[in-house]
Amino acid sequence: MIKVIISGCSGKMGHVVAQEIAQREQMQAVAGIDLRPCACDFPVFSSPTEVNVKADVMIDFSNPSALFSLLALAKREKLPVILCTTGYDEKQVAALKEASREIPVFYSRNMSLGINLMIELCKKASQVLGSAFDVEVIEQHHNQKIDAPSGTALMIANAISQTRSGTTQYVYDRHSQRRKREPSEIGIHSIRGGTIVGEHEVLFAGHHETIRIAHTAQSKEVFAVGAVNAAAYLVGKPVGLYDMSDLLK
Amino acid sequence: MIKVIISGCSGKMGHVVAQEIAQREQMQAVAGIDLRPCACDFPVFSSPTEVNVKADVMIDFSNPSALFSLLALAKREKLPVILCTTGYDEKQVAALKEASREIPVFYSRNMSLGINLMIELCKKASQVLGSAFDVEVIEQHHNQKIDAPSGTALMIANAISQTRSGTTQYVYDRHSQRRKREPSEIGIHSIRGGTIVGEHEVLFAGHHETIRIAHTAQSKEVFAVGAVNAAAYLVGKPVGLYDMSDLLK
Amino acid sequence: MIKVIISGCSGKMGHVVAQEIAQREQMQAVAGIDLRPCACDFPVFSSPTEVNVKADVMIDFSNPSALFSLLALAKREKLPVILCTTGYDEKQVAALKEASREIPVFYSRNMSLGINLMIELCKKASQVLGSAFDVEVIEQHHNQKIDAPSGTALMIANAISQTRSGTTQYVYDRHSQRRKREPSEIGIHSIRGGTIVGEHEVLFAGHHETIRIAHTAQSKEVFAVGAVNAAAYLVGKPVGLYDMSDLLK
Amino acid sequence: MIKVIISGCSGKMGHVVAQEIAQREQMQAVAGIDLRPCACDFPVFSSPTEVNVKADVMIDFSNPSALFSLLALAKREKLPVILCTTGYDEKQVAALKEASREIPVFYSRNMSLGINLMIELCKKASQVLGSAFDVEVIEQHHNQKIDAPSGTALMIANAISQTRSGTTQYVYDRHSQRRKREPSEIGIHSIRGGTIVGEHEVLFAGHHETIRIAHTAQSKEVFAVGAVNAAAYLVGKPVGLYDMSDLLK
Repeated sequence: MIKVIISGCSGKMGHVVAQEIAQREQMQAVAGIDLRPCACDFPVFSSPTEVNVKADVMIDFSNPSALFSLLALAKREKLPVILCTTGYDEKQVAALKEASREIPVFYSRNMSLGINLMIELCKKASQVLGSAFDVEVIEQHHNQKIDAPSGTALMIANAISQTRSGTTQYVYDRHSQRRKREPSEIGIHSIRGGTIVGEHEVLFAGHHETIRIAHTAQSKEVFAVGAVNAAAYLVGKPVGLYDMSDLLK
Repeated sequence: MIKVIISGCSGKMGHVVAQEIAQREQMQAVAGIDLRPCACDFPVFSSPTEVNVKADVMIDFSNPSALFSLLALAKREKLPVILCTTGYDEKQVAALKEASREIPVFYSRNMSLGINLMIELCKKASQVLGSAFDVEVIEQHHNQKIDAPSGTALMIANAISQTRSGTTQYVYDRHSQRRKREPSEIGIHSIRGGTIVGEHEVLFAGHHETIRIAHTAQSKEVFAVGAVNAAAYLVGKPVGLYDMSDLLK
Repeated sequence: MIKVIISGCSGKMGHVVAQEIAQREQMQAVAGIDLRPCACDFPVFSSPTEVNVKADVMIDFSNPSALFSLLALAKREKLPVILCTTGYDEKQVAALKEASREIPVFYSRNMSLGINLMIELCKKASQVLGSAFDVEVIEQHHNQKIDAPSGTALMIANAISQTRSGTTQYVYDRHSQRRKREPSEIGIHSIRGGTIVGEHEVLFAGHHETIRIAHTAQSKEVFAVGAVNAAAYLVGKPVGLYDMSDLLK
Repeated sequence: MIKVIISGCSGKMGHVVAQEIAQREQMQAVAGIDLRPCACDFPVFSSPTEVNVKADVMIDFSNPSALFSLLALAKREKLPVILCTTGYDEKQVAALKEASREIPVFYSRNMSLGINLMIELCKKASQVLGSAFDVEVIEQHHNQKIDAPSGTALMIANAISQTRSGTTQYVYDRHSQRRKREPSEIGIHSIRGGTIVGEHEVLFAGHHETIRIAHTAQSKEVFAVGAVNAAAYLVGKPVGLYDMSDLLK
């Protein structure tokens, strides 16, 4: 039985992590960390310093400011830690890398297994198909999203670019020009509407054939599932810095 | 048996029209008009004035300059005519409208039955869904196409706009701004790659549900099929100006 | 301000209805009916007979057994009622039809506006395209669903069949036969996997072109949205029996 | 300049191969082999024994019965050969393997680069995702196809099965049963309609996310493109048996 501490257990993602763990026979949530009240069925501590329960791994969905005290707890208890919080500054990133010399630290910008696999598949496809196939990235999100393209779309486009010789131009708008497409382009299209959670598609279009690789997130629960998978993976691993690409090997 | 004259029979589209007619039990190509040589199994005349074969309907896939002599033939023989040539100037459009007082004239900017149906379906969807659903148009074409968006994508967006109260903004690029989507927008996205013949998709994205209406053209033969369908429809109709929307009723 | 009573307010769908109403400026939940405890911010009564709050419309997401007492309340108060419960027996259906002579009653087998629109669009497409286009229905649902095809897929296929002359055969499996497709077939395909909420697609495949009409439900909240839209529609309408097709006019 | 002999040059695929070669700067068709007349711009011989033109590689799109005389020519001239003919019997397969000890022989059941890449991607995805994701294969072809599922769909399903521990059941029809999906299933769905050239999609459906890998063939020219790519690859290679997976490395 893998015993898990959930940091940020009162938040939306913390709840989903607890539910996901409850469905797994080999895992159990043994403690939570959160300042806010929580209807959890495990003891909840208001700060990492107060935790007095033994565990095998810790999952964090709280916020960047909690990082230093979480790492202190993890190092003291030799506790592998999954950091799912986004928005760390440079100093915080340096601290988590430093900690990974003493404990296993898992840190990925996108906790979805599917997105990380998709990126691997796109890199493989780009290597094989080369410049004979044109590449376009299409992403769809809800109408409240203020940035475009999505960070994930850029991760995908960057990964593909790195497999190509020569420079790549990202093209966001074709209506203002009258000319044929260049092979060096990657078109990036940001579709916005309704409550779409998140879709990413890469089109490889060649002579008389196309390949499409697409990922759909149905809800944010997918990130909780990824975190719990990462926790199961991290238990028993040597010290070091891990990310989602390690789960793909 | 419907007897058909094919104007422009030596061209690529003329060939496909002849093949399509040959597959129909109730139709027969009885003459062609073309200056170029043709391996056709029906007599071919080098200009409309020389045609001496009786027919029930004429399909034109030649070029704008042939219009006046074609209309003269059609009026003389009381021959319904399907004009599939694009690029008429104002004077030519006036002439074909004038001719439609004497004979049935069929003239449509896109001869695909599917695209014309798609436009009708999008109008209906837009009327029902109203401003509660966001609308995005996505079109895909080969990498040699120089204009963007496609003329058909604009036809679709314009048709949807006309069903909406208030003004509509077409948005081609979201990467240069950081803000939420406005309900008054219609996003239009031009994907280019490989040898894609033509795909058009309209996304209606609402609260927790989406509707998609999509059309795929597999080859330019689809326009020949549309022309032959229009010919079968036009035989026996009263004088007047017809287009693809008449086939949808 | 439209005042709404929510029957079944403690259930999952009842909660979502309350949330949806809270987001609308012109609507307000004024009472709930449920035997179970509820953290609602409006008074909750344990049965319809106890309700002593004036309202404009009632939405029911409880269960079939509550129907008679709900209809008694609705008739007494001249309260339009939206019945979103499924699984009524014949006697219950007769009772709700009877009630619709005294009050407006809204009753639809699928409360999603999108699905009901999709069915209308498919009927229109089938009428226009006729037997020249082959029709296939593809539905996708989660791996816990025990019936196949989905009830909604059958609703769609039945609606298309009714627009066609001649008989239609539903074909669920082609691997056991070696023969060409008949135009009279409608292929129905049930894809099952993961936690897919619900996708329905109809393919119309013709000569060198295809049209696809597809609906995706992202969560069950879509049915709550449909119910609240129906409530807004029903207020002020004459007595009678209504369903989702009335919202499409 | 790579000099190519085209066996079966008068057939449809032979024509397309010649066109594809004509578009490549580094390649040239120097001879054809066919009993039928041909409007080719290179000399055409009625059998392999008559060929007296030096070349670097030979592409065969004729038929199984020509195999032995083609291999005799290839062995005599030390000519690498691309065999794109399908339907070889066991004796013929043995002969081409035998020949691959003397010359480079390229033989693949599907000459599309895209399909072969797709299979590699699906294997990788299946290895990473394991039993947590359900797998479904959906293929679409024209209404004249008599077999279902397509041979390519089975190639894909078989490749995925081989990456999985435990047995896999192929499920073609779910309407005749009332039960939840088993993780060991692979659903295979054969959609038929119109003139669809060929589409294959694999769905990996997990917890709150899905991945789709899809291939679309726009025309049979894709197989000619694959054959010409294989020819360019094979020139200068050591003796041995090659297939499309070699182009993916």
